[in-house]
Amino acid sequence: MKTITVSASKKYDVTVGSGLLPTIGQRIKDLTKAKQVAIISDSSVYPLYGGTVEQSLKGAGFAQVVSYVFAAGEESKCGSTYLQILEFLAANRLTRSDCLIALGGGVVGDITGFAAATFLRGIDYVQVPTTLLAAVDSSVGGKTAIDLGAGKNLAGAFYQPRLVLCDTDCLNSLPEDIFRDGCAEVIKYGILYDVDLFAHLKQTGLAFDRERVIARCVELKRDVVDRDEFDHGERQMLNLGHTIGHGVEAQSNYTVSHGKAVAIGMAIISRSARSLGICSADTAADILATIEKFGLPITTNCTADAIATAALSDKKRSGGTVNLIVPERIGQCSIRPTAVENLKSVIEAGL
Amino acid sequence: MKTITVSASKKYDVTVGSGLLPTIGQRIKDLTKAKQVAIISDSSVYPLYGGTVEQSLKGAGFAQVVSYVFAAGEESKCGSTYLQILEFLAANRLTRSDCLIALGGGVVGDITGFAAATFLRGIDYVQVPTTLLAAVDSSVGGKTAIDLGAGKNLAGAFYQPRLVLCDTDCLNSLPEDIFRDGCAEVIKYGILYDVDLFAHLKQTGLAFDRERVIARCVELKRDVVDRDEFDHGERQMLNLGHTIGHGVEAQSNYTVSHGKAVAIGMAIISRSARSLGICSADTAADILATIEKFGLPITTNCTADAIATAALSDKKRSGGTVNLIVPERIGQCSIRPTAVENLKSVIEAGL
Repeated sequence: MKTITVSASKKYDVTVGSGLLPTIGQRIKDLTKAKQVAIISDSSVYPLYGGTVEQSLKGAGFAQVVSYVFAAGEESKCGSTYLQILEFLAANRLTRSDCLIALGGGVVGDITGFAAATFLRGIDYVQVPTTLLAAVDSSVGGKTAIDLGAGKNLAGAFYQPRLVLCDTDCLNSLPEDIFRDGCAEVIKYGILYDVDLFAHLKQTGLAFDRERVIARCVELKRDVVDRDEFDHGERQMLNLGHTIGHGVEAQSNYTVSHGKAVAIGMAIISRSARSLGICSADTAADILATIEKFGLPITTNCTADAIATAALSDKKRSGGTVNLIVPERIGQCSIRPTAVENLKSVIEAGL
Repeated sequence: MKTITVSASKKYDVTVGSGLLPTIGQRIKDLTKAKQVAIISDSSVYPLYGGTVEQSLKGAGFAQVVSYVFAAGEESKCGSTYLQILEFLAANRLTRSDCLIALGGGVVGDITGFAAATFLRGIDYVQVPTTLLAAVDSSVGGKTAIDLGAGKNLAGAFYQPRLVLCDTDCLNSLPEDIFRDGCAEVIKYGILYDVDLFAHLKQTGLAFDRERVIARCVELKRDVVDRDEFDHGERQMLNLGHTIGHGVEAQSNYTVSHGKAVAIGMAIISRSARSLGICSADTAADILATIEKFGLPITTNCTADAIATAALSDKKRSGGTVNLIVPERIGQCSIRPTAVENLKSVIEAGL
């Protein structure tokens, strides 16, 4: 078991390890004043782990445990599910001192975090990521969100959880393809910050040391969030592969998963960086080979024009420029403000 | 013209005076990096002042000004209007550096503030209160909200505006009855904090000095918000008359206005305080006479039971107690935690 402490506007622990789920009740008891706990989960995850969590809560003395389960899938991360969760909490008379548990992947974590941020103007919540992607990315750092008709994550709040409990046993139930999606973010941390992590991943592929790697990714994300909680600068580094990736994802009408889109986005920006002389041919080749080693895609059928247009409806655009994260070498990337009208040619160079 | 500076998590000015509306464009230009401004307003207010605000914005060089107008009334302060505003902002491609203007009363201010707090996880907004109630209460202090099916203001965020611009000329268009509603909050500030303000109101009734009184109320609220932005303690004082008032309001299915409900709430708690020996008969009489001088109600047909039940679905309840604000003398009130099961008898004593 490894514990990483995040010191954002609220201080909280991210605990990573095997066999943690049955301990959740006592942990929440020790951390909060909650009398009632509401579990928010989806139709894929709740049948697997809902019972364990409920039992643990009841064992810790929570008399009132309620659960709200919505249909699994990105389509549920919308305003209507969000409002339904709020009405559910109000109908069950949760108070400002009560607590939510986000039991699931990124969709569950993002929407539950947003509900927690805004129900009664903010109540406690605990993230229990059950996918690799959520464990290393969305469950840490307090970015909560819902999608709008116009695009992903267009509404939300910065709102830190009280605890992130990552039971690595939950990953055993993940279909390999979903696990693979999370690997794109894991590779991202290596490219951004950590030569050793990247080398480990390049060597092991999917068989990496889960507790060690997840804890290291969380630590790296923690360092960024501590320095730039509200995304005014350095936090943008975490968007490596994401601006172009979002374009690919949106352009495919979300049939390409987030992880695969990020993999393609990282591949495109790496080839583009190589062709512009920002990184060496070896660095680009290393990145592309590692992505492929995980069985993740490095190409797309979309045109540069289509990707650029879709990417520009992304929220990270500010005025007439878009900030691209570009690899210089493994462990070091830079933020490059790019004129909106030049995005297409940057993508073109990396297709 | 008077300017009060609020030093909450963001520092901003509240400017009160005559003839301010036509200056809004230049003020936003000086304060923000916005390229585009979206005016959010309702069907009562927009026809009166929308043109002036748009003209001022265009005069200050904002090329892109868009307006979203929803049907006036508390029913609009709901999740569905909120989501429609978000979609409108996304469709018009507002970015994180753009700005919203809340042009209207409390409903417009609360829902626009919540949209600003959550669109792209937070963009700038300016409050332009056009009712007395909004000027002295909801536009200052950063409490934003929407109503849920289960009750008023059950979802929202703490999110401070960049500027509050209160043009007292807007109050001239207010129907007297709506103006009167705002007076309940004005009287509240006198009872809570200021013997001189109370004396002025007791003497003048509706004819009080608007600029002076509004600026003083804002100053008093500012002092509370500076000390307790996130409503963990002292800010609860501002709920004088509100817990019981919300009960009356909800019980009437919102046919009794907020201002009148607060007036009734203050009257009930004052009589109750008198009968419990917490305040003198003179203090209670002073409060009741002043409320009546403004033409506001001091009685209700509701039973104590009905009011208590409706009040307890209010979000301010925490666990088994509800914090009532009770007058001790003019200018001094106290927070009294009251067991939920005793609320009915406290109300009974003041009916």
